[in-house]
Amino acid sequence: MQALADQGAATADQVSCVAKAATTVDPQLQPDQVEDAGTPVLPLVRALRAAVGDPETAAVVHRGLTSQDVLDTALMLLARAALSAANANLDQLGDRLAALADAHRMSVMAGRTLTQYAVPVTFGLRAAQWLVGVLEARAGLVAVNERLPVQCGGAGGTLALVGELVPDPVRAATVFAADLGLQWPGLPWHTQRSPMTRLGDALAETAQALGVIAEDVLVLGRPEIGELRERTGAGRGASSTMPQKQNPILSVLIRSAAIQAPAHVAQLHLCAGQSVDERAPGSWHAEWPALRRLLKLVVTATAQAAELVAGLEVDASTMRARAEESAAELLSERGGDVTDPSSYVGSAEVFVDVALQRWKAR
Amino acid sequence: MQALADQGAATADQVSCVAKAATTVDPQLQPDQVEDAGTPVLPLVRALRAAVGDPETAAVVHRGLTSQDVLDTALMLLARAALSAANANLDQLGDRLAALADAHRMSVMAGRTLTQYAVPVTFGLRAAQWLVGVLEARAGLVAVNERLPVQCGGAGGTLALVGELVPDPVRAATVFAADLGLQWPGLPWHTQRSPMTRLGDALAETAQALGVIAEDVLVLGRPEIGELRERTGAGRGASSTMPQKQNPILSVLIRSAAIQAPAHVAQLHLCAGQSVDERAPGSWHAEWPALRRLLKLVVTATAQAAELVAGLEVDASTMRARAEESAAELLSERGGDVTDPSSYVGSAEVFVDVALQRWKAR
Amino acid sequence: MQALADQGAATADQVSCVAKAATTVDPQLQPDQVEDAGTPVLPLVRALRAAVGDPETAAVVHRGLTSQDVLDTALMLLARAALSAANANLDQLGDRLAALADAHRMSVMAGRTLTQYAVPVTFGLRAAQWLVGVLEARAGLVAVNERLPVQCGGAGGTLALVGELVPDPVRAATVFAADLGLQWPGLPWHTQRSPMTRLGDALAETAQALGVIAEDVLVLGRPEIGELRERTGAGRGASSTMPQKQNPILSVLIRSAAIQAPAHVAQLHLCAGQSVDERAPGSWHAEWPALRRLLKLVVTATAQAAELVAGLEVDASTMRARAEESAAELLSERGGDVTDPSSYVGSAEVFVDVALQRWKAR
Amino acid sequence: MQALADQGAATADQVSCVAKAATTVDPQLQPDQVEDAGTPVLPLVRALRAAVGDPETAAVVHRGLTSQDVLDTALMLLARAALSAANANLDQLGDRLAALADAHRMSVMAGRTLTQYAVPVTFGLRAAQWLVGVLEARAGLVAVNERLPVQCGGAGGTLALVGELVPDPVRAATVFAADLGLQWPGLPWHTQRSPMTRLGDALAETAQALGVIAEDVLVLGRPEIGELRERTGAGRGASSTMPQKQNPILSVLIRSAAIQAPAHVAQLHLCAGQSVDERAPGSWHAEWPALRRLLKLVVTATAQAAELVAGLEVDASTMRARAEESAAELLSERGGDVTDPSSYVGSAEVFVDVALQRWKAR
Repeated sequence: MQALADQGAATADQVSCVAKAATTVDPQLQPDQVEDAGTPVLPLVRALRAAVGDPETAAVVHRGLTSQDVLDTALMLLARAALSAANANLDQLGDRLAALADAHRMSVMAGRTLTQYAVPVTFGLRAAQWLVGVLEARAGLVAVNERLPVQCGGAGGTLALVGELVPDPVRAATVFAADLGLQWPGLPWHTQRSPMTRLGDALAETAQALGVIAEDVLVLGRPEIGELRERTGAGRGASSTMPQKQNPILSVLIRSAAIQAPAHVAQLHLCAGQSVDERAPGSWHAEWPALRRLLKLVVTATAQAAELVAGLEVDASTMRARAEESAAELLSERGGDVTDPSSYVGSAEVFVDVALQRWKAR
Repeated sequence: MQALADQGAATADQVSCVAKAATTVDPQLQPDQVEDAGTPVLPLVRALRAAVGDPETAAVVHRGLTSQDVLDTALMLLARAALSAANANLDQLGDRLAALADAHRMSVMAGRTLTQYAVPVTFGLRAAQWLVGVLEARAGLVAVNERLPVQCGGAGGTLALVGELVPDPVRAATVFAADLGLQWPGLPWHTQRSPMTRLGDALAETAQALGVIAEDVLVLGRPEIGELRERTGAGRGASSTMPQKQNPILSVLIRSAAIQAPAHVAQLHLCAGQSVDERAPGSWHAEWPALRRLLKLVVTATAQAAELVAGLEVDASTMRARAEESAAELLSERGGDVTDPSSYVGSAEVFVDVALQRWKAR
Repeated sequence: MQALADQGAATADQVSCVAKAATTVDPQLQPDQVEDAGTPVLPLVRALRAAVGDPETAAVVHRGLTSQDVLDTALMLLARAALSAANANLDQLGDRLAALADAHRMSVMAGRTLTQYAVPVTFGLRAAQWLVGVLEARAGLVAVNERLPVQCGGAGGTLALVGELVPDPVRAATVFAADLGLQWPGLPWHTQRSPMTRLGDALAETAQALGVIAEDVLVLGRPEIGELRERTGAGRGASSTMPQKQNPILSVLIRSAAIQAPAHVAQLHLCAGQSVDERAPGSWHAEWPALRRLLKLVVTATAQAAELVAGLEVDASTMRARAEESAAELLSERGGDVTDPSSYVGSAEVFVDVALQRWKAR
Repeated sequence: MQALADQGAATADQVSCVAKAATTVDPQLQPDQVEDAGTPVLPLVRALRAAVGDPETAAVVHRGLTSQDVLDTALMLLARAALSAANANLDQLGDRLAALADAHRMSVMAGRTLTQYAVPVTFGLRAAQWLVGVLEARAGLVAVNERLPVQCGGAGGTLALVGELVPDPVRAATVFAADLGLQWPGLPWHTQRSPMTRLGDALAETAQALGVIAEDVLVLGRPEIGELRERTGAGRGASSTMPQKQNPILSVLIRSAAIQAPAHVAQLHLCAGQSVDERAPGSWHAEWPALRRLLKLVVTATAQAAELVAGLEVDASTMRARAEESAAELLSERGGDVTDPSSYVGSAEVFVDVALQRWKAR
C-alpha cells in the first residue's frame, strides 16, 4: 500500500489504518477457507478488509495485486529470514572448521577410498575439505540472498490494474520491493521460476555440504574406529532403552536432512518446468511445501552442524596409531622403504592453507 | 603426462609415444572388465600400457592419478562440449524469441491463470517471459562452464605420488588443467561435489526454461485454441496410424526432457551429500549416469527448442479474436466501460523491452 | 503393556494405572527434547513415567521396546486411520465415476492424443478409465491395509529384553499386534522396510489415479474447450482480484498432490535401501516426514476428488458438437464415407462394462 | 497379425511373409527418424512394409494398432525377460542367504544401532533379515510378472479400426496377448499406468533389498571392523594406482544401483499421474528411459548380489571376539551379572527359522 500511496493512490491515513488493522487479524486460517480459494490469500484479504471496517479504505487493501504476488513475496521474505539464520550458522561452523583444519594440519590418519585403506591423509585436510563445502554453500546462499525478488505483476503479470491506480506502475513495483528490502527483477516471474530454483539449488548445496560432515563423523565415530566422537551429554544422544548408549544424534539428524533435501529441490525444478499460461494449475502450488521444507531443513541442519563441530572430539592419537599400524597398506602405492605414514601426505598442508585463506577472504 | 613432462618426470618422446598409442586403443571396453574394477579406468590404462609396449614408458601412463581423477576430468570435458553445444542452441533460440517478442509486442491475447481466462496479455510478453527463462539458463551455463574444474588429487586427494615424481605437484595439477582448458580449483574435489551439483543445477534450470515453452505451445496449439502451431511437415509429427495427424512432436519431446531432468539433478545432490571418506562407495558411481543423461537431455532439448521456435506459427488474429470474444471476462477486474482488451495490457510492452535489452546486453 | 501383562510381567493394576496416566500426558513436546533424543519417544516415556508416579509401575513403562518399535508402530496406526479415510473417499469417488461412465456410455467426444484430435471416443469410456485407476488404487490400499504390521523387536531386533520379562516373547509380540489391530509379521522389520515402501507405493498409485482425473478436468474445462466444468460456487474457486473468475480449484489442488507424491515415495525407497546395521542413522529418520506427507496428501486428495466428481458438470452436447465439427479429422484413420463420429467408437461400450463390472465386484 | 489372421483379416501367407521380412529389418534406426515421429514405431513400420514389398500384405502391417500399443507391449516383453533373469538371480541369492542364515544361527556379533553398539545379535539373524528382503522382492516381481499386460487399444483406446477388420476386436486383443504370453487386462491402459508403476515399484523394492546387503557388507567389511569380506581376486576390486587395494566392488556397484532406483520409480509415478487425454504429451515418453534403466539396474544388481553373497567371507571369530570385548556395553540394557553376549540374543534363532521356512515355502 505504501507503494500505491507513494503515487497518490492511497492516503497516509489509509495506510496507517490498514497497518493497524493488520495487527489484529489472526493469521491462523480455517483450512476450509484456504481450500476454497486454493491459497490463504483471499481469506486473509477478507479478514483484513473486515478489520479495517471503513469501505473506502478496505477497497485499497490488496488492490492491483494477485494472490501469487502475495504468496511469492511472502515466501521470499521467509527465505530471507531463513538464509540469514543459515548464514550465521555457517559462519560459526566455518570458523570452527578452520580452527580444526589448522590445529590438525599435521594429524596423520588413514585415508580411505571405497571403505578400504588407501594412502595417508591428515585430519586437517579432511576438515579443510569440509570447509570448502561450507564455503561453496555460503557463497551460494549469499548470492541468492542478494537477488531475492519481490513478486509484483497483478492478475496476468502486466500490472494492468496498478496502472489504473498510479501513473507509473513499474515505479510502484520498485517501491514495493524497496519497502520490503527485496529486489525488483525488472518484470514479474509468475511463470519464470529461476528465483525459486536458484534458491532451492543453494539450499540443497548447503545440505549436501553438511551431509558430508555427518557421514564422516558417523563412520569415524563408529566404536571400532573411534577417531572422532560427537560430544554427547546434557541429554544429547540418550537411548530410550539402553543406558550405556551415546548416539551421535546431531550427525544422524544432519544425515537425515541431506537425504531429504534433494527431492525437494527436484520438486522445484519440476514445477518450474511446468509453468504454463500466466499461472500454472498445481505446479505452482506444489512449490510451497517443497520450499518451506527445504528452508526448515537447512536452518536446522546448519545449527546442528555448528553445534556438532563445536563439540567434536578428535582423537589424533588413535588416528596416528591406526595409520602406523596399517602403514604397509597405506604406503604400498609409494613403494620403497618408507614406513612413516606422515612422510607421505603430499600436498595436504598446501591444501589446508588454500582452504583457510579462502575462508579468511570470504 | 604433459604435466609430468613439464617438470621432467617424463620425456617428450614418452609423451608422444603414449599419445600415439592412445589413438590405437579401442575405447569400447568389455563390460566385465569395467565391472571388475568398478570403473572403466583400469582396463583402459591396461590397454594403453599394452599399446605403448616399452615398459619404462608404460610405467608413466596413469602415474600419480587415481581413477576418480580420470573419470571426473573426463566428465568435465564431456560437459564442456555439451555446454558449448547447448549454449549455441540457446543463442539461436534466444534470438528467435527476441524477434517474436518484438514482432508481437502489440498482439493482444487472452491471459489465462489456473486454465481460466484472466486479464488480457500480449503474445510479445509471453515470448519475452520465455526469453527471460533462456537468459537465466544461459547465464547459468556460462557461469559453470567458466569454472569447470580438472580433478587431480591422486589416490587420497593429497597428490602424494605426483609429489614423488616432480618437485611441485600443485604446479603439475595447474599445467594439467591448462592443457585441457579446465580450471585448477585449488584443491581436489573428490568428496566436495559442488562442481557436479552446480553443473547439474544449471542444466536443470535450462531444461525448465525449455519446458515452459513446450507447455505453452502444447496448450495454445490444441485444436480448440489454435493460437500457436508447431510447424510440422518434412516428416515431423506424423502418426503411425492416423493420416491427418500432425503431432507437435518437438514440444512433446521437450516436455519429456523437462519432466526427466529434475530427478537427475536430485541424484547429483544426493550423491554429493553422501561423499564419505576420501572416495565414496556407490554414491560417486551413481553420479555418472545422472550427469550423462542430463547433458544429453539438455543438448537435445535446446536444439529441439531452437527448431521449435524457428518454425512456430503464431496466429495473432485468432489470439485477438478470442480476446475480443471473451472481453467481458478479461476486463471484469477493471470494471468500467472499457471493451477493447488491447487497452488493458498494462506494462506488457515495458516488460518486453526489459527482456529484449537484457538479451542484447548478455 | 497388555502384552506383558498377558504373560504376568505386569499386573492389571499397573496396566490401568499407566493407561490413566497416559491420558494426562501432553503429547506436544519441546522440540529441544526431541532433538536431544532424535525421536519423540524418550521425552514421552519420561513424561509418562513421571505421570505414573509409583516407581515400580513406572519401570514397566516402555519395557523391552526400543524407540523404533514405538515410532514404526505409531506410523502404522496413523496409516491405518488414513487408509480407512482414503478408502471411504475412494468408494464415494468410484460410485460417482461408475454412474458417470454408465450415463455417458453413448456420449461421443473427440479423442485426443498428444493434444491433437485422434479418433472419436466416448466420455463414458473416459470415466471408465478413471474408474479403473480408482479400482487399482483401492485394491492397492486394501492390500497394504490388511498387512500393516506392528513393529516389535526391542533394542536390536531380537526381543531379548522382552524374553527376560516373559516366557514367550514372540507371543507377546503377537498379543501386542492383536491389541492394536495390526499384524505380527513374523519378525521385526527395523531394517527391512518393505512395509513402508509398499504403503508408499499404494499411496503414490492412488495419487496418480486422482492426478489423471484432475489433468483431464483441467484440459476439458478450459474455456475454449468447455466440455467439462468443475462446479464452483459456495466459495470454491474465487479469485482474490478478478470477480468473474471461477477457478477449478479442486482439480488444481489434486494435480498439485499428484506432482508431489512421487518424490515422497522415492524417499521411502531410498531410505529402505540404506537400512544399515540394526537401525540406520538418518535414513530411518528421513522416512517420517515422507510418509506423513504422503498420507496427508492422499487423504485430502481423495476427498477432493470425490467432491470434484460429485459436482462435475458434463456438457455432452458440446462434446458431440465438437466431435461432429471435427469429424473429418476424427474419422480419417477409418477412411470411407462414414461421417458420424459416434459410429466409430469401437469397443468403447464393452470397456465401460468391463470397468463397471469390476467396480461392482470389488 | 496372428490375432487378425485368427478372425480372417489376414491370410496365413501374409503372416509368414511379414514374419520373414521382419528378420531382415535392421532394428538400429536413425535418431532423426525417431525424433521425427517421437517414437521408433513409425520408421520401423515403414522399414517393415518396404521389406515386405507386396502392397496388399504391407497394408496389413501395423493395422489397427497405434504406436503406444507397440511400444508399451515391447516394454512389457522386455520387462518379462528382465524379470525372469532377476528372479533367477534372486533364487540363487536367496538360497545362499538361507545357507548363511542357517550356518550362522549361533554366530554372535555386536548389534549396532545409529552406528553404536546396541545389544548382541547373530550374523544368522542379519542374513535372515537380508533373506526376508529378498523374499519380499521376489514375491513382488513374481506378482507383477504374472500380470504383465499387452497393450492393445488402437489410436484412441477403442479398438475401432480393429473392429473394422474383424468381427470381435476384443477377442483379437486376447489372442494377441496369448501369442506373446502376456495378459489381456480387459481394457487398454494407455492412460491408466498402474501396470508401469507396479512394475517400477517391484523393481525398486528389489533394489532396496539388495542395497541393504551392500550397505552392511560395506560397513562390516571396513578394515577396522573386518567381520565380513567381499571375495576379491580374479580381477575384482583392483585399484588403478594402489597395488594392495582390494575394493568391495560388487557392494559398491549394488549400493550405487540402490541409490539410483528410487528416482526412476518416482518418474514412473509422476508420468502416470499426468496421463492426460487419450495419450499424454511427454509424460508417456518420459517413462521409457526410467523403466529401461530400472530393468537394467535390477538385472545387473541381482546378479552382482548373488555373486557377492556366494563369495562372502564371514569371519565369525572376529564377530565373537568383538562381541566379547564390548560385552559390557552390549549387555548394559539387561543389567545383572551376565557377561556372555551369546546368552542375550533373545529370539534371534526363532526369527532365523521363520525366514528359512518362508524361503522354503515360497
